[in-house]
Amino acid sequence: MCETNVYIDHEGKEELYLENVSVVKPAKGKIFMKNLFGEEKFFDGSIKEISLVTHKIILSDD
Amino acid sequence: MCETNVYIDHEGKEELYLENVSVVKPAKGKIFMKNLFGEEKFFDGSIKEISLVTHKIILSDD
Repeated sequence: MCETNVYIDHEGKEELYLENVSVVKPAKGKIFMKNLFGEEKFFDGSIKEISLVTHKIILSDD
Repeated sequence: MCETNVYIDHEGKEELYLENVSVVKPAKGKIFMKNLFGEEKFFDGSIKEISLVTHKIILSDD
């Protein structure tokens, strides 16, 4: 698999939120994600962009 | 990059919608996507799950 990281777009600046994610999905009104090491996070926002070229998933807190 | 395909979850069955996507993002109330060959599609639904392990992006028409 490809190493993909999740970033938060915060006022136009991308901040790293979780590295090496295996799954990302909307759940319970938030964005749930889990990485290859079993770490899980919920982010209160929305999916802004998924780029398979740069291996980035960008979330927005708007 | 990794070859990732977009599927539509239709009543529990995954149907292939677009192969080799490079970017997927919400736009104009729909889900916009483009693939490596320049093909573009808009899907009227939402992102259900992004799996970087199986290289699938699953959309829902719910």
